[in-house]
Amino acid sequence: MTNGAQALITTLVDCGVEVCFGNPGTSEMHFVAALDTVPQMRGVLCLFEGVVTGAADGYARIAGKPAATLLHLGAGLGNGLANLHNARRAHMPVINVIGDHATYHKKYDAPLESDIEPLADWTHGWTRRTNTGADVGRDTAEAVAASLASPGRIANLILPADVSWGGGAEASEPIAPMPPASPDPKAINEITEVLRTGESAVLLIGGPATGVRGLEAADRIAAATGVRVLAETFPARLTRGAGVPAIERLGYLAEQAAFQLDGVEHLIVAGTRAPVSFFAYPGKQSDLTPKGAAVHTLAGLDADVVGALEQLADLVAPGSQPRLADAVVPELPSGELTPQNWVQVIGALLPENAIVSDESNTSGLLLPAATAGSPRHDVLTLTGGAIGQGLPVALGAAVAAPDRPVIALQADGSAAYTISALWTMAREDLDVTVVLLNNSAYAILRLELSRVGAEAAGPKANDLLDLSRPNMDFAKIAEGFGVPATVATTCEELAEQFRRALAEPGPHLIDARIPALF
Amino acid sequence: MTNGAQALITTLVDCGVEVCFGNPGTSEMHFVAALDTVPQMRGVLCLFEGVVTGAADGYARIAGKPAATLLHLGAGLGNGLANLHNARRAHMPVINVIGDHATYHKKYDAPLESDIEPLADWTHGWTRRTNTGADVGRDTAEAVAASLASPGRIANLILPADVSWGGGAEASEPIAPMPPASPDPKAINEITEVLRTGESAVLLIGGPATGVRGLEAADRIAAATGVRVLAETFPARLTRGAGVPAIERLGYLAEQAAFQLDGVEHLIVAGTRAPVSFFAYPGKQSDLTPKGAAVHTLAGLDADVVGALEQLADLVAPGSQPRLADAVVPELPSGELTPQNWVQVIGALLPENAIVSDESNTSGLLLPAATAGSPRHDVLTLTGGAIGQGLPVALGAAVAAPDRPVIALQADGSAAYTISALWTMAREDLDVTVVLLNNSAYAILRLELSRVGAEAAGPKANDLLDLSRPNMDFAKIAEGFGVPATVATTCEELAEQFRRALAEPGPHLIDARIPALF
Repeated sequence: MTNGAQALITTLVDCGVEVCFGNPGTSEMHFVAALDTVPQMRGVLCLFEGVVTGAADGYARIAGKPAATLLHLGAGLGNGLANLHNARRAHMPVINVIGDHATYHKKYDAPLESDIEPLADWTHGWTRRTNTGADVGRDTAEAVAASLASPGRIANLILPADVSWGGGAEASEPIAPMPPASPDPKAINEITEVLRTGESAVLLIGGPATGVRGLEAADRIAAATGVRVLAETFPARLTRGAGVPAIERLGYLAEQAAFQLDGVEHLIVAGTRAPVSFFAYPGKQSDLTPKGAAVHTLAGLDADVVGALEQLADLVAPGSQPRLADAVVPELPSGELTPQNWVQVIGALLPENAIVSDESNTSGLLLPAATAGSPRHDVLTLTGGAIGQGLPVALGAAVAAPDRPVIALQADGSAAYTISALWTMAREDLDVTVVLLNNSAYAILRLELSRVGAEAAGPKANDLLDLSRPNMDFAKIAEGFGVPATVATTCEELAEQFRRALAEPGPHLIDARIPALF
Repeated sequence: MTNGAQALITTLVDCGVEVCFGNPGTSEMHFVAALDTVPQMRGVLCLFEGVVTGAADGYARIAGKPAATLLHLGAGLGNGLANLHNARRAHMPVINVIGDHATYHKKYDAPLESDIEPLADWTHGWTRRTNTGADVGRDTAEAVAASLASPGRIANLILPADVSWGGGAEASEPIAPMPPASPDPKAINEITEVLRTGESAVLLIGGPATGVRGLEAADRIAAATGVRVLAETFPARLTRGAGVPAIERLGYLAEQAAFQLDGVEHLIVAGTRAPVSFFAYPGKQSDLTPKGAAVHTLAGLDADVVGALEQLADLVAPGSQPRLADAVVPELPSGELTPQNWVQVIGALLPENAIVSDESNTSGLLLPAATAGSPRHDVLTLTGGAIGQGLPVALGAAVAAPDRPVIALQADGSAAYTISALWTMAREDLDVTVVLLNNSAYAILRLELSRVGAEAAGPKANDLLDLSRPNMDFAKIAEGFGVPATVATTCEELAEQFRRALAEPGPHLIDARIPALF
């Protein structure tokens, strides 16, 4: 007899979902037991749901397909929401399996009872509660298809315990996801005309367009027409380095973005939206499109963005080749670590085909320049701004690509949110090198405090942005979670430790003590 | 000129709210800056919102009044939801100040934009979005009053950044919270009649009735009528030990509870509800009220529960005195630590007037017996079942009662959720002794796996409940967060380290290596 949990897992596997990041509880015990009956499904235990959901995001960014998560009731989903927000903003497919009380138990309002649907709906994705075993297979196949419809989204499958343990369930066949809309010839023609005017234009690309094919098409367009290409500020996955067109990102600070877009008459967007300020600041614009500039959409996120770029490139630059970045790396610096030199160490030593999970925040402001000519790599960024994403995303990426070196560049304040991700890296023996940028401050908030016009902050305010009382020793914390760790205070130490960490299998953490920029 | 943030904080202070646990972001920078203008408000920085909300819960349990929290947008509130669920089930007052984007910035759907109201409403409390500076003071006073109306609840105040930084705001006078309903003479008379029948009866008490006054009244009733008194399974704050009536708690396992309630004809509830099973189990009852038993409500949670118990006691046992537990502590055991003997070490050495934050889970099954005759203490339990509550609650309790020793008995799996609470304990130099019960397993789930009828679990299932690959070294983790730590493997070591931790000021962690019960 097949129970609901077995039918669910079998359907997931048949739909190509092979990994389940989980933090189960009592209501998910039959799901856990069913894992042994479906050998193709890998269960990866995390110690906190924020790690679970962030790992699923990182997995999808590299695997190009969803992982499942296993979450315990509303409270477990609640713990996972912040990184689901980041996954939502990255347009990544994720299948949340949210265990719930047995259908007949709900009415008793037991201590862990809570409303699950409002939290699931918060992800702006797809949500279904499965009420009988007969529906499990179909609901699961629909969840996978929903997550994969363009652009990717979060699918929430609420699984009552008695549906999980009950019989009468059957696995379902995969359902083909809705394909992306075809490129719109009218938009392509209109933009071709705009590009031919010779007026000042920027092409802002995002979503799937920040992969190699999209970057190459965009660069061909730029070379032929003079349009400047920018990538969105926080791409889900940006390919860069030697052999890839070098595309600058739109700045995080509104002042940077305004400088980059100054004088632009046409803003062409592909796979993203016209840019807006991350936060509001007194007396400053929220809308970053320069006044008077016309916005043209080449392709929305539900469309074949890369196809649209390639068609446009073939129209304006037929037969051309993209310009690829040269392999030029910084010289290894020496002396005490600074915000300026640590990035050069990374740029000098970055290995071929690396995945960089970048939550370095203010410490990483100079990173893009230092790694522009390093060997080709993928950068995964903090798409939704909910901090605590870097370590889980690195974990999920490493599960997706066991043959690639994964490097997590991780700010200290953000690291504390989901620090137990280190334990799962150790447990799964993942090849992740964490460079923990330990500046003992919420440095970005020091900057923001002055940017919002609250410069005259007193000692209590400044104390709330200070992480030096006490300083955190991330090397000890990492060792406590089973990850070998070292401390680096000089460029020489960082270089030596980084090389060694890359050479050895399994996870390592380097607690890099650098001063704060702000 | 008073800005919105200053008016808000001033109103909180005028309403008696003197502590704000926070984890701010850009949209809360003016609130942070305003802290320096209101010296009576203490800001306590936590590294994760789940610590913030759990600390507010623990603070309220001991202070008997709310703390404020400062949370960053929907994602920050999301991170705090699980411990807000526990606070909700504890009926504790909490004032969440949830920063949001500026009113005019919302429509741009910036990366951190999300729906806040559905998450706030999930707490089943009170929610208000403040749209103008003119409303800030009144909304804040109403939030405090709402949180304190009987029983306590969570009040969510959504504060747009431009309301925070804008002028034209004024502090408001406090608003008196709705008092609890007076005891119902009809219910008291009915229950007096029930108690006089001599039929088998249990008095189940909860909410405020598990403090000294409620326990003494309940015990007087028991002594005079033969009714058996039980405390609810997970009380927010249960006073016990020498000099306090010894009241047993209703068991967590349905089998225990069924045994305790076997043969009962009348179930009288005061400050709680008729008991239900924590989870559903195949083929087992969810409703724990024995079949055929009549349920009588002496006082609901919105009423003066303690007053009702005292009136009932004066009717059935006029002029009587409660029976108080003797001071009898276990002998100090010796040898390797076991689930059976570590509790005796605690029972033997528990100091006078301690606060015990108990998230020991399976490791603590034998704790109540071992501490029944220890010096008087308050036990704070996991009211809502959302794990990761013990360390934050201990932190908040220590802020509320700097003169009392706080002891956190903390299971390992649950500790990983909110481990950064240790850092705030170090930062604030709080007198908390954490005994970390390190059994390298989700032992409770091993038990639950068999209880739900999934005994035939295979290696993959068992692996998902195992925390020994790698073992966590909580002493190292604690030191990394700035808390002095030791490892204990024997009763002698635990006793010596526990004594020393209590004697020294500031936080300490003892990583107690004990085998799992299951």
